Amino acid sequence: MKNTIFTFKDNSPKYKQIYEKFKSFIEQGDIKADEPLPSIRQLADSLHVSRNTTLMAYEQLVAEGYIRGEGRKGYFVNELEPLLFQEARSSSTHKQTESVPPVRIDFRADVVDQSHFPLKTWRRISNQVLTEKDSFRYGEPFGELCLREQIAAYILQSRGVRTDPNAVIIGSSTQQMLLYLGLVLKHDFSSMIVEDPGYDGAREAFRLNGFTLETLPVYETGADLSHLEHMKSRLIYVTPSHHSPYGVSMPIQQRHALIRWANKMQGYIIEDDYDSEFRYSQKPFPALASIDSARVIYLGNFSKSFLPGIRLTYMVLPELVLHRYKKHFTHFESPTSLFSQLTMAKFMQLGEWNRHVKRMRLVYKRKMLHLVSELKKQFGQNISIIGEQSGLYVLIKLHLNRSEEWFIQRAFSYGVNVCPTSLYFIKNKTDHPIIKLGFSHLSCEEIGLGVGLLKKAWM
Amino acid sequence: MKNTIFTFKDNSPKYKQIYEKFKSFIEQGDIKADEPLPSIRQLADSLHVSRNTTLMAYEQLVAEGYIRGEGRKGYFVNELEPLLFQEARSSSTHKQTESVPPVRIDFRADVVDQSHFPLKTWRRISNQVLTEKDSFRYGEPFGELCLREQIAAYILQSRGVRTDPNAVIIGSSTQQMLLYLGLVLKHDFSSMIVEDPGYDGAREAFRLNGFTLETLPVYETGADLSHLEHMKSRLIYVTPSHHSPYGVSMPIQQRHALIRWANKMQGYIIEDDYDSEFRYSQKPFPALASIDSARVIYLGNFSKSFLPGIRLTYMVLPELVLHRYKKHFTHFESPTSLFSQLTMAKFMQLGEWNRHVKRMRLVYKRKMLHLVSELKKQFGQNISIIGEQSGLYVLIKLHLNRSEEWFIQRAFSYGVNVCPTSLYFIKNKTDHPIIKLGFSHLSCEEIGLGVGLLKKAWM
Repeated sequence: MKNTIFTFKDNSPKYKQIYEKFKSFIEQGDIKADEPLPSIRQLADSLHVSRNTTLMAYEQLVAEGYIRGEGRKGYFVNELEPLLFQEARSSSTHKQTESVPPVRIDFRADVVDQSHFPLKTWRRISNQVLTEKDSFRYGEPFGELCLREQIAAYILQSRGVRTDPNAVIIGSSTQQMLLYLGLVLKHDFSSMIVEDPGYDGAREAFRLNGFTLETLPVYETGADLSHLEHMKSRLIYVTPSHHSPYGVSMPIQQRHALIRWANKMQGYIIEDDYDSEFRYSQKPFPALASIDSARVIYLGNFSKSFLPGIRLTYMVLPELVLHRYKKHFTHFESPTSLFSQLTMAKFMQLGEWNRHVKRMRLVYKRKMLHLVSELKKQFGQNISIIGEQSGLYVLIKLHLNRSEEWFIQRAFSYGVNVCPTSLYFIKNKTDHPIIKLGFSHLSCEEIGLGVGLLKKAWM
Repeated sequence: MKNTIFTFKDNSPKYKQIYEKFKSFIEQGDIKADEPLPSIRQLADSLHVSRNTTLMAYEQLVAEGYIRGEGRKGYFVNELEPLLFQEARSSSTHKQTESVPPVRIDFRADVVDQSHFPLKTWRRISNQVLTEKDSFRYGEPFGELCLREQIAAYILQSRGVRTDPNAVIIGSSTQQMLLYLGLVLKHDFSSMIVEDPGYDGAREAFRLNGFTLETLPVYETGADLSHLEHMKSRLIYVTPSHHSPYGVSMPIQQRHALIRWANKMQGYIIEDDYDSEFRYSQKPFPALASIDSARVIYLGNFSKSFLPGIRLTYMVLPELVLHRYKKHFTHFESPTSLFSQLTMAKFMQLGEWNRHVKRMRLVYKRKMLHLVSELKKQFGQNISIIGEQSGLYVLIKLHLNRSEEWFIQRAFSYGVNVCPTSLYFIKNKTDHPIIKLGFSHLSCEEIGLGVGLLKKAWM
């Protein structure tokens, strides 16, 4: 295959552009029969798109017979029938617009509900903020005090975390904060325990700082903390309120055990409370940071509960870490927008934030209930549903002897996008593939239609 | 002095709050006569304010006789006259509101002109962006393509830098980008050359990544590149278009010499083109990156030319670095606001950006000319003016046998804030103190008034 530079030019979906490029490579003989294609991971990395995007492109090529998957060996180009080849070539312009079925239902997990967004209020406040003198300067290095005060009040009320606003640090993304934090922690710590499965983005941030990673196995029923005994690390990154991806919530006994462990080891727990707002069946358990603030670094963000693109994250640091963090970053400019901070502070101060979260909890609860009931109706005993008590997605474990790729590809060819979960797993693999269905931006009608199509695709 | 926690509570200026706190410590005997105060740096670091802020608070205490400065030894509490002490205590509420002269003229360099900000246009575009479906997702890890395309077109037209939009990376602040970039570069490089004097914030970012720093001396007339011969580093961070802080522009011979050096060393030049928009006397020299894009990492930002709080920065990476950078950060979320990116892209696409820069160049040129002419009128041969051809500040070197602190304090007591420059210098100290006067947000009337007050304060 010749080394051709890809450029994404127009607004059509990226998987479609990748699909079309490869189709034309194959048709024009740039990649010959039985030649291997780049792996999903390689291609995703080199084009800087998600693996899901490249997977979708490949699966479409598989569905149309251009390439074949050979399990772990990867994808290979099929011998093309001369007729098919001719046909494809002559009608390529026509085919380009028709060959990929329009995606009708997208169970992606990285967007939020737009229809209930408090557009008018947000716009009114942000327009006002823009006229204020305070908006024409650099922001405070650790975030605006007005927002840190609002966050301190909010996490006390909603998560039991008691903190001085001065111990709150505002950043742009969880990964940016973990990266900055890692630069401070790595003076005293060289390794870190992460959940397996667990949030891959956090692992990347730790790896970039050179931390060695140990893995704590987590199952659908929760983490197995007995493994901690045999580990050397004194730092652990966990998602106790809503495990990513299993959705399980850590029981209070385990929370206490974890805190005891951190105290014994003189280490720290990094508690990523990334979507604590959306718990449907019961009140959320208090945050770890509410039990022992001296050993817990608490992280929260506005990406799930408000808008992912706003890039507002916060962390609460225990005294020793705070002191070091501020020493390291005193001469650093704030990494996140001053306007977003000032607008969010005002939004919270006016009570709009609490109203928004309450409203969205109802909206998302309705969607979650509908999705789960549709899944049960359509699939019955053929699937297990995981993590339906909270969050903006569910996992489904499919009791069928097929690969994750097969499920994604079949769904795709029926016009439904679903998400893989394999990227969360390190060593602790599951017996059956698990598919992630994000629902936050879909209407109940779309959810029903999507599940119906999945039934046709998979059963 | 007892260990008292400071909290900044209300909206009054921070230096005033610090001043009042220390005044009350002294009046109440919490700090006794002849006890030392924390150093400017210590206090600034522990309160997380700028050194200028703490300096202003101390200088006010000096002016009122509460403390005295003893040169490099620091500040010490004065013996209080019993009468003064009583008076101060009894009228403390009254005094708190009157004792600090209201700052009338603030020659700070970290804000922009608000009166010419294209408020309506920006508001219209951002309000529209907020209604678009595209705004309710996470952004692309390396920035939105639409903005990268606009930036690529802009730097070609204005700076001669020819790049593929895919080689443009968008981040939030120069320091954030230098930190991320450093994580990639440190695999191959362990030390870095920085300008002395030079931008302290860049040095901090390199230090956090563990780079050893070598210093290249820079004078009012420019850098002395002959020192490069004796250095081991293969990386250099420079501000060739408008040296920070001297404002001098690197002549073309030196630019070529620097590029030859980078090629010979197989190293890279990090070119921070942080305010290239504002050159008044002649067309700016082309960027280093326009001469040899393979050896130059080019950085630009919107903080000076648009708004510091927007947190939008970009860099253009040479192929090898780009490849590595993307490999490291493919699974990283964008560190900067999606809305700001989408709004800026539209703003540029509509031609508003070019109009804004042109307008601001005239506005700032007028202010610069006025400031320089007022300085010459008031001070004549008593000062040298440095860097008047470009940028949003000038430096003045005062031919008087006084310390930087004295100039700042005297100016302050006459109601004028000016900025120190000592933090830029490492080893290459100047013979006379140099004061920085930022003018971007001041009107010509305010500039005239401010320079008049400086004359009274200093001469």
